Amino acid sequence: MIKKQKSIDSPQKPHILVCNDDGIEGEGIHALAAAMKKIGRVTVVAPAEPHSGMSHAMTLGTPLRIKKFLKNGHFFGHTVSGTPVDCIKVALSHILQSKPDLIVSGINYGSNTAINTIYSGTVAAALEGAIQGITSLAFSLTTYEHADFTYAGKFARKLAKKVLLEGLPTDTILSVNIPNVPESEIAGIVITEQGFSRWEEDAIERHDMFGNPYYWLNGTMRLLDDNMRKDEFAVRHNYVTVTPISCDLTNHRYISSLEQWNLQK
Amino acid sequence: MIKKQKSIDSPQKPHILVCNDDGIEGEGIHALAAAMKKIGRVTVVAPAEPHSGMSHAMTLGTPLRIKKFLKNGHFFGHTVSGTPVDCIKVALSHILQSKPDLIVSGINYGSNTAINTIYSGTVAAALEGAIQGITSLAFSLTTYEHADFTYAGKFARKLAKKVLLEGLPTDTILSVNIPNVPESEIAGIVITEQGFSRWEEDAIERHDMFGNPYYWLNGTMRLLDDNMRKDEFAVRHNYVTVTPISCDLTNHRYISSLEQWNLQK
Repeated sequence: MIKKQKSIDSPQKPHILVCNDDGIEGEGIHALAAAMKKIGRVTVVAPAEPHSGMSHAMTLGTPLRIKKFLKNGHFFGHTVSGTPVDCIKVALSHILQSKPDLIVSGINYGSNTAINTIYSGTVAAALEGAIQGITSLAFSLTTYEHADFTYAGKFARKLAKKVLLEGLPTDTILSVNIPNVPESEIAGIVITEQGFSRWEEDAIERHDMFGNPYYWLNGTMRLLDDNMRKDEFAVRHNYVTVTPISCDLTNHRYISSLEQWNLQK
Repeated sequence: MIKKQKSIDSPQKPHILVCNDDGIEGEGIHALAAAMKKIGRVTVVAPAEPHSGMSHAMTLGTPLRIKKFLKNGHFFGHTVSGTPVDCIKVALSHILQSKPDLIVSGINYGSNTAINTIYSGTVAAALEGAIQGITSLAFSLTTYEHADFTYAGKFARKLAKKVLLEGLPTDTILSVNIPNVPESEIAGIVITEQGFSRWEEDAIERHDMFGNPYYWLNGTMRLLDDNMRKDEFAVRHNYVTVTPISCDLTNHRYISSLEQWNLQK
């Protein structure tokens, strides 16, 4: 089930598709594209607008548009008028000439640990890559402001090189969370599991000018993990976390218990 | 990790929250609510509009509205102006007085087997229930037209009763797919794994009246499974499939391999 990718020592540089969920104007995708350009040919395809929290949503009810996006007057990449998953689907079917060697998603503003793995559009874009048979990585930085992508970009490059050599199981991506600190303060790199930490207080009620109520989703992440094997705990202790995430959601351990329910009767 | 729910033999009937992703006007949610009313107190909270393919998306950038929905002049349930996951979050924080004993999602038009497990808003609503600590089930019927919910409703009721007695692991839901055939043609009930079947041809290009291209996501499900242990294969052979789906996406089997990459160096 391990698929080896093109070696980065081969004459032709690997082709790397870069996506995100913060939208093409997000600072993180520019840091990630710059990091990848040092090791491969890069194509950027990203949402025209921010799509945080969109998970694996895809656009079925409206058509999608592709546009070119310029940065400082030069072509930087393509935008798609949809979700991160739409971007991967449209990139593979209509923008790229052939399958890329690697898909990288991010660098996201805000960690995608624990339950955020499920809500994240950044992770979903990488998972869509895996579904399409392409080695894929997701990168997130643990802050929403004063982001310093220097070390994150450096680590993304290092991991991308490694993964191009080693490959990954076909149903699995690596979701990487990076503390927003200088490299000297990084405590280390750990392989982690998706933690149990959850959001609390899910919606707040306000009233409009007519007195009618409306609701904003809101909340704070409650830390429910207590060891370095869990992504949220480790990243809070300044470790870079690397979590293997699968698109097979089956709880295999529970199948034999369910079979004893004898639902046939 | 197994949490027992209130027995259905207790004096107070279990409280069941019913949601879907096809929207409150979808026929399937009315069949599911009717089935659940025979065993419990039912509250319906569903999207105001259809939200197929929205996966675990939540609405962060706009406020949500709650409205009452009447059926034949009588109160049927609440609508939320957002996604299936929004419905669960808003129901738990602002509509229900206390946590329900069970969440059921569906009955969806179209199967949610194989990779559709990830794209599905029906499954996501149930997973959001599990995240919030509530026993949850998702139901899908294998057709988009000429739906006959008779047997599906009957089986949903049977499984809901069973699950209220047995409980489920805290991170796990059951995703159920039901063939759209009369009960006499149901081949049986099998416990399955999420299959490998995938969509092919992901977007088609068309042109608007100005000659500009636009893209619709599209495709056909390619059967990549060949045995009754896989949901898509089994449901195509007229079996009801019951798949335990987890919100822990970690590929645990791959962690030891990753640790040998020695990323610290």
